[in-house]
Amino acid sequence: MIGIALLGAGRMGRVHAQAVRNAGARVVSIFDPVTDAAKTLAHDVGATAVGSAEAAMEHDDASAILIATASDTHVDLVIQAVEYGKPVMCEKPLAPTLGEARRCIDTIGEEKSRQVFLAFNRRFDPGHATVREAVRNGAVGTLEQLLIISRDPYPPPLDYIPHSGGLFRDMMIHDFDMARAFLDEEPATVSAFGTCIVDKRIGELGDVDSATVTLVTASGKIAVIVNSRRSAFGFDQRVEAFGSEGMVMSDNPLRSGVRSFTEAHPGAPDRIREFFMDRYGDSYRLEIESFLAHADGGDDMPVNAIDGLRAVYLAEAAAASNATGRSVQLTSLDQSFDHA
Amino acid sequence: MIGIALLGAGRMGRVHAQAVRNAGARVVSIFDPVTDAAKTLAHDVGATAVGSAEAAMEHDDASAILIATASDTHVDLVIQAVEYGKPVMCEKPLAPTLGEARRCIDTIGEEKSRQVFLAFNRRFDPGHATVREAVRNGAVGTLEQLLIISRDPYPPPLDYIPHSGGLFRDMMIHDFDMARAFLDEEPATVSAFGTCIVDKRIGELGDVDSATVTLVTASGKIAVIVNSRRSAFGFDQRVEAFGSEGMVMSDNPLRSGVRSFTEAHPGAPDRIREFFMDRYGDSYRLEIESFLAHADGGDDMPVNAIDGLRAVYLAEAAAASNATGRSVQLTSLDQSFDHA
Amino acid sequence: MIGIALLGAGRMGRVHAQAVRNAGARVVSIFDPVTDAAKTLAHDVGATAVGSAEAAMEHDDASAILIATASDTHVDLVIQAVEYGKPVMCEKPLAPTLGEARRCIDTIGEEKSRQVFLAFNRRFDPGHATVREAVRNGAVGTLEQLLIISRDPYPPPLDYIPHSGGLFRDMMIHDFDMARAFLDEEPATVSAFGTCIVDKRIGELGDVDSATVTLVTASGKIAVIVNSRRSAFGFDQRVEAFGSEGMVMSDNPLRSGVRSFTEAHPGAPDRIREFFMDRYGDSYRLEIESFLAHADGGDDMPVNAIDGLRAVYLAEAAAASNATGRSVQLTSLDQSFDHA
Amino acid sequence: MIGIALLGAGRMGRVHAQAVRNAGARVVSIFDPVTDAAKTLAHDVGATAVGSAEAAMEHDDASAILIATASDTHVDLVIQAVEYGKPVMCEKPLAPTLGEARRCIDTIGEEKSRQVFLAFNRRFDPGHATVREAVRNGAVGTLEQLLIISRDPYPPPLDYIPHSGGLFRDMMIHDFDMARAFLDEEPATVSAFGTCIVDKRIGELGDVDSATVTLVTASGKIAVIVNSRRSAFGFDQRVEAFGSEGMVMSDNPLRSGVRSFTEAHPGAPDRIREFFMDRYGDSYRLEIESFLAHADGGDDMPVNAIDGLRAVYLAEAAAASNATGRSVQLTSLDQSFDHA
Repeated sequence: MIGIALLGAGRMGRVHAQAVRNAGARVVSIFDPVTDAAKTLAHDVGATAVGSAEAAMEHDDASAILIATASDTHVDLVIQAVEYGKPVMCEKPLAPTLGEARRCIDTIGEEKSRQVFLAFNRRFDPGHATVREAVRNGAVGTLEQLLIISRDPYPPPLDYIPHSGGLFRDMMIHDFDMARAFLDEEPATVSAFGTCIVDKRIGELGDVDSATVTLVTASGKIAVIVNSRRSAFGFDQRVEAFGSEGMVMSDNPLRSGVRSFTEAHPGAPDRIREFFMDRYGDSYRLEIESFLAHADGGDDMPVNAIDGLRAVYLAEAAAASNATGRSVQLTSLDQSFDHA
Repeated sequence: MIGIALLGAGRMGRVHAQAVRNAGARVVSIFDPVTDAAKTLAHDVGATAVGSAEAAMEHDDASAILIATASDTHVDLVIQAVEYGKPVMCEKPLAPTLGEARRCIDTIGEEKSRQVFLAFNRRFDPGHATVREAVRNGAVGTLEQLLIISRDPYPPPLDYIPHSGGLFRDMMIHDFDMARAFLDEEPATVSAFGTCIVDKRIGELGDVDSATVTLVTASGKIAVIVNSRRSAFGFDQRVEAFGSEGMVMSDNPLRSGVRSFTEAHPGAPDRIREFFMDRYGDSYRLEIESFLAHADGGDDMPVNAIDGLRAVYLAEAAAASNATGRSVQLTSLDQSFDHA
Repeated sequence: MIGIALLGAGRMGRVHAQAVRNAGARVVSIFDPVTDAAKTLAHDVGATAVGSAEAAMEHDDASAILIATASDTHVDLVIQAVEYGKPVMCEKPLAPTLGEARRCIDTIGEEKSRQVFLAFNRRFDPGHATVREAVRNGAVGTLEQLLIISRDPYPPPLDYIPHSGGLFRDMMIHDFDMARAFLDEEPATVSAFGTCIVDKRIGELGDVDSATVTLVTASGKIAVIVNSRRSAFGFDQRVEAFGSEGMVMSDNPLRSGVRSFTEAHPGAPDRIREFFMDRYGDSYRLEIESFLAHADGGDDMPVNAIDGLRAVYLAEAAAASNATGRSVQLTSLDQSFDHA
Repeated sequence: MIGIALLGAGRMGRVHAQAVRNAGARVVSIFDPVTDAAKTLAHDVGATAVGSAEAAMEHDDASAILIATASDTHVDLVIQAVEYGKPVMCEKPLAPTLGEARRCIDTIGEEKSRQVFLAFNRRFDPGHATVREAVRNGAVGTLEQLLIISRDPYPPPLDYIPHSGGLFRDMMIHDFDMARAFLDEEPATVSAFGTCIVDKRIGELGDVDSATVTLVTASGKIAVIVNSRRSAFGFDQRVEAFGSEGMVMSDNPLRSGVRSFTEAHPGAPDRIREFFMDRYGDSYRLEIESFLAHADGGDDMPVNAIDGLRAVYLAEAAAASNATGRSVQLTSLDQSFDHA
């Protein structure tokens, strides 16, 4: 049974610890600056809480490293973890800013960057993955238009907002990665519009709670992302891939096959999932399995730090577009933004 | 524009008069023993109200005859109409009793019987017809199990019950014809169970309001019919054809593509149809068109008086099965019932 | 039976003539510069073909005027028709350019402009209208995000493209009107992206075949429109209205309630509609009924020339945004475009 | 962690061992007359393989007993297990014949019978359970008609047929229990029709492969069960509960929310489950959790040996009805069958 060093015992640390167990592996060492959190989680999963990240990573039974600490510590920990030569998985985002993300890639180099698993779990959701596979297999012909709708059931606590980096970097980062995964071509232009209509206090804190982004590629593919911080009917997570020969959609999966028949709504389906824990539970397990399947050493990871960099790049561009009211041309990662 | 003599200006007379117009033909003469009803309908559709069935049938512009009078007059009018040599369409049922139905066939003979259109409109419903066509084209392989669900939105007036012939002859007659149309093989056994659970007063009048019938054919096909006199969510009319290679279903069509998303029911569809007038409106027009398309003389009608006889036969057998608590073997139309 | 003067006997003239009959009215006079077209249609519907627009409008039995001629003749005919004092209905668009549309409003004045029915038929589609009504009744709380997807089954003939005004003015004009009807607030910003990915020859003719537009209102509502000139699975016409308390969607209505069950797709529905004639047939009848219901004189029409002007305004702004790569601020109809 | 003695290491033994683990308990001792099967399973789940049922049941760490051996050994093992005073769960059926089932109840007495958990897992399926709960809570008003469709994906091996007891006892036993659970009233009449149309060799072995049963209660409720040994589109498991105020259905749950849009089937859903292992996986875990929740001693189990007896009674009656072609009146468990 593969042993894993886990850095971070907060909410995502717990999610990953559960996924590790579901994937048939085990967490052996845990570090978190909040000592009690590490101890409690270590107790729950039968691991050892240690006093430093180094101690966790050096643990004899740890043959892989999983980073689930605060976003602003990711880069340093990735750089450090790579030096141990053990396979590394890092929770998204790679970094809170594009500069930091670039520093990570520049430091460890492109080859090693491709060997760092970046935990964009939605790629591993069975529904989304089936659609992406269908697109790759030509089920819709040439992909032409992509629609990604992501709506959280409710906003985060207000005190989270100022440190979140804003909706584009914090929430839409998943959708930028999804768009890249589906388009199979880098966006050339990004245009973003955010508004505050769900909760005015979010606007007062300098953020938006509703947003849409348009991405256009050089070949003419168009991707539209729609986000809201609140959805009254549950966690709304949909992808529509439209192409020359048809469309495939990953719609919200239902809790069961129960349908009720009233006069107003004959055949009304059961509820959808409430939030990411029940909606994306399978995806967390499947991404651990994917990570472990590529952890024999030297393999490029199917989603890696380069993807992490590019998602941050899109998030930065979207934030800039929204701030300036102008589209952003994404000519190259090596260029600074060229505001249209 | 083909002219039609219409016998009967009651509810079904009106339904057919509307369907005639929708089919691009016109009613030219109308007779009804209730003179005012004939006059009113004649005025509404631009026809002439006449004083006798003969006068209606003999009308110079009438090149076809449509019988929509009370059930117990159908046989005599069919016999009379056939003598005019004009194409005849008769509303279901062919007769209120099996004896009467046999008298009709015996009098006009089998060849002429096949030229009398019997108005089982559900055969012409676009959904049901598509499923039947799919079954005939082998879409489900060998048909093995057929499920027909027919539920009215609400029971008929109580004073209608004593003269209705009972649920099996009055309401389920449609389903017997549908079963025959789909099975493409005559049932060998009929077993019926009726209960009174919707409205006890229906039971006090000697009828049932809920029922199921099982039909089995010699080759082993099973058809199940489920009826209720009341459905809280609208007119429930479904057919499921299950076979060796799959299933095709004619589900209740929805009023529109509107779907509402609430927490309890994300994606709840619009309502279904209320009753036969809006549910089966298309079928009435399409059956007139089918009648007229076969009205050039001498053609067998796609659904005819022989089908009318056989449906009555099944209804009688079901009523007998329900009354005796025993299955009925349907060895032959020429034999009396052989109670198992 | 109300008599109508019909100007234009081309495709849309025929559509409206059919709708007039379905609505229980009749076309009495028809003018078309193509004399044979007028004669043929007049023959088909029992009207009189006349030699000039004036002759059609002056016809004694014509108590209303319906303009369905080429787009560049609408303004002059509306101005002329209004002078007759008869109720006027004009096919969309009001004018091919914003300048022309303004000339129309300026000439007849705002009061009369509100009495000219502008034929945005989609407002009368039962599904879309139900959703709009639900939104107005608060079914989704505060409307926050609107998604309109419109995809034609196949592109128009290539020789139509150069004279069409381009996708934003020709095809998306409907969606701009729909967006306005749902938002109940004028857009403050429009941002458009068009690409050519369906058929390169459309691009060579200077147009796009795929596009998305983002509209943002002052209160923070966001509307996203997605268009394609080709949809392999039929005429894709959807509206999603998302708000603080839920979502209501007008999904593509199905041809019937037939569902097929194969291993790959258990419960697969029937097809959707092919194109506007069968998809929006009801809406054409219902808009005629709405027009006639408001034709007693002096009423504001529920959708009128002012709406026609505003839709053209949005189309012009979208075309400008797409051409310049910049968002367009829609501060006022009285201002020229203010490119951000 | 509760320890369980597992009798039987065959297919159902493995299913339950997995469910025990998923429920957070553990198997501690395993007996199977096939020693290697016991050893292999014991190794897989970290239990001890022992040489006799007694040794398994007496194991110090075993605080509950789970019987998953061959059907004809259930009664003796239940009687023996009850003597240990530990909570007992027995796989269905309670016994292969009604006589044997009665012997079990007579031996241990009614009180103890109600404390033996009978493993009708479908009661614990989230979809079916939700519908049953809705019915109990009055969601459909008075339950009037119940439809249960159960179709296996493919028939069992032919050599299984002669020892299976036949479709009514082997396959439909689940549906009899489901019918009882939903009706909340014992059936008064059972009428069964079985045919052989899927595979003629099944008929040559004396069994049927397609069947329908009608159950009628004293109050007039009607339940219809439809079975087939083969379903080309997957494991078809549906329940429809129709009542005075509406209907609730447990439809086949889909593998994901993926929908594909082709011209023929726009919005076609993903596949359903293949067979009981993936369809009813949750139900096996949930029934273990229910068993353990009632295992503190002395509680009546929510589904118990009395239910097991009654399901066998219905299966026997159905087999007798099918064999004789007559309905069977179920006046009392104490009476012999009274063939109508």
